[in-house]
Amino acid sequence: MDLNDIRAEINEVDKQLQELFSKRMELCGKVADYKIANGLPVFQKDREKQIIANVTEGAPEGLQGATRVYFQTMMDISKCLQYRKMFDNTGFIPFKKLDLSGRHRVAVPGTFGSYNHIACSELFEDADTMFFDNFEEIFKAVSAGAAEFGILPIINSTAGSVVQTYELMRQYDFKICAQAKLKISHCLAARKGVRLEDIHDIYSHEQALRQCSDLINRGAYKAHSFSNTSLAACYVKESTEPCAAICSEKCAEDLGLEILRRSVQNAAENYTKFILISHETFKADNADTISVCLALPHQSSSLYRLLTKFSVAGLNMTMIESMPIANTEFDVMFYLDFKGDIGKKEVTTLLSELSHELSYFKFLGNYKEV
Amino acid sequence: MDLNDIRAEINEVDKQLQELFSKRMELCGKVADYKIANGLPVFQKDREKQIIANVTEGAPEGLQGATRVYFQTMMDISKCLQYRKMFDNTGFIPFKKLDLSGRHRVAVPGTFGSYNHIACSELFEDADTMFFDNFEEIFKAVSAGAAEFGILPIINSTAGSVVQTYELMRQYDFKICAQAKLKISHCLAARKGVRLEDIHDIYSHEQALRQCSDLINRGAYKAHSFSNTSLAACYVKESTEPCAAICSEKCAEDLGLEILRRSVQNAAENYTKFILISHETFKADNADTISVCLALPHQSSSLYRLLTKFSVAGLNMTMIESMPIANTEFDVMFYLDFKGDIGKKEVTTLLSELSHELSYFKFLGNYKEV
Repeated sequence: MDLNDIRAEINEVDKQLQELFSKRMELCGKVADYKIANGLPVFQKDREKQIIANVTEGAPEGLQGATRVYFQTMMDISKCLQYRKMFDNTGFIPFKKLDLSGRHRVAVPGTFGSYNHIACSELFEDADTMFFDNFEEIFKAVSAGAAEFGILPIINSTAGSVVQTYELMRQYDFKICAQAKLKISHCLAARKGVRLEDIHDIYSHEQALRQCSDLINRGAYKAHSFSNTSLAACYVKESTEPCAAICSEKCAEDLGLEILRRSVQNAAENYTKFILISHETFKADNADTISVCLALPHQSSSLYRLLTKFSVAGLNMTMIESMPIANTEFDVMFYLDFKGDIGKKEVTTLLSELSHELSYFKFLGNYKEV
Repeated sequence: MDLNDIRAEINEVDKQLQELFSKRMELCGKVADYKIANGLPVFQKDREKQIIANVTEGAPEGLQGATRVYFQTMMDISKCLQYRKMFDNTGFIPFKKLDLSGRHRVAVPGTFGSYNHIACSELFEDADTMFFDNFEEIFKAVSAGAAEFGILPIINSTAGSVVQTYELMRQYDFKICAQAKLKISHCLAARKGVRLEDIHDIYSHEQALRQCSDLINRGAYKAHSFSNTSLAACYVKESTEPCAAICSEKCAEDLGLEILRRSVQNAAENYTKFILISHETFKADNADTISVCLALPHQSSSLYRLLTKFSVAGLNMTMIESMPIANTEFDVMFYLDFKGDIGKKEVTTLLSELSHELSYFKFLGNYKEV
């Protein structure tokens, strides 16, 4: 048989499959109407299990696995359509329009010239900054209303996700309302008069130390970790020892430190993304990205089946990150970003569906990705 | 219409769908035979695009997204079956049987009493340990054949993935051949005679510092990061200042340090997993987990479609982690673990398929998960 003949046959089969698929979805719509009218749950585990068992058993040798995935996916798609009916006019998330112009109180880790502070000045024309020593105080200030906004690093292109920010995101109530991205170029700075060859100790934030590990290993420096690069620079300024800080050039200049070497990070292309958080839900008009946090059941293919939902809704996932949950034996929480706007129905339906189906689900904000 | 009537109709539709699905897969098998005979590639992008465009266009209003996912998944399933034919008798990965009994040279980060050293003694009865200051030297020693095996931490249940290990895994050639898991309980240790109230400085590895952040924040201690907990303890032993180390109790005892406080980590349930690496591929008889590393195309639903392959093969993914690739603007590499044995055909077929389809794919080992 020639390839074109086989393909013609496949086309014929596909036509019939498409008709039957549409018919099945229509029938499922009727089931949904019935369930809504009678207050029944969309997902009926036993019925689904039964169907999978029947079709897998009836499948030809070698096609069992394929048939199982085929029917499971089809039923997952049909569930999405049923939820679409169920959550048709619910699930709207109230939000206020984001406006960063004018004067705002912003909680910022570190001090003047910290990368967080630089990111803050990229977002606000006129920020009334409140500086804090560590990340948890930023969440506390925002939760308690002491600050309208807070800024935090979330990921660096060399050192990876900022685990501490993720851990706190699970613990506090807040929404992400904006993002900033900085190209990070660290310098090595010391008190005026201190010579490079006399330096044995380097102070900085652990992420910055990791981004500059080549310099530290080559020079066999002793690395000391501070809660922030700018606070490390302040320490170096006050110290009487011949030591240096890894910090931004701006920070070194502001403090009157001497820049001994510029661009000391391992990778020339070194970026950090920051999130702007608030207690209320604010959304910019051009918001295009949604962040959520969720737990998945301990079942094979639970991630696959979650992604079916995004695919059916036509929403593109742009990031997935699993983070261990502290004080458990490697239980994980998933953090996902996808493209979308909470003003759109397909988004609110999906969010309703996820919060309805999953044991833990949290909407973390809708903002413009940079 | 009553629920049972609708369901009876659905059952009827499902029966027809199953027949047509089996028929389509059979026809695809013929296509595969033709392609193999004529040396054509399994994936023909244009043909697939055309089918998706046709069926989406012909779909009823509101069913376009669902129809697209339905056909895309069906074609992905059929590709898996075609690859199964293509890679039927290829893709075998040669391996030697893992045997950790007897004496072996093992590269271990840190020194006596480091957590890596404790993990090493859980795996080997009689290890000839070679200690190294940093993780990269472990990979180098194993690559160069200076050590038969090397041990490295890979993830901690509080502090997350060990980013540095992941980064090095991409750069060096090696295979994971075993795993060890330790319950980690840190102590605060100082030279004999040093009092807790005189301590302002704490030395340890950055992961251990992060696991003990509550202690450090409450006491407003200055944290100093060392490449290893045991090397930090050695430093504290030699120091003339009143400082302390965060390390294992074994390490403190071995060095003759005084344990000022036990179990100082934030979380009572605190575990670290270690990997044992080798230059050759070794596999234990009870190996049940496979690790791979891969890059995905910058396309919506590329992760979803990757997971379709695992689902069809009936192989359960147990871990997924995305890590930024240094010196790029947030390009990521995916690390996946799944249950399986490279002695089984469904596994070698999937591995062949992945290495054939993806621009970057690396098999990292097959070992017993603990």
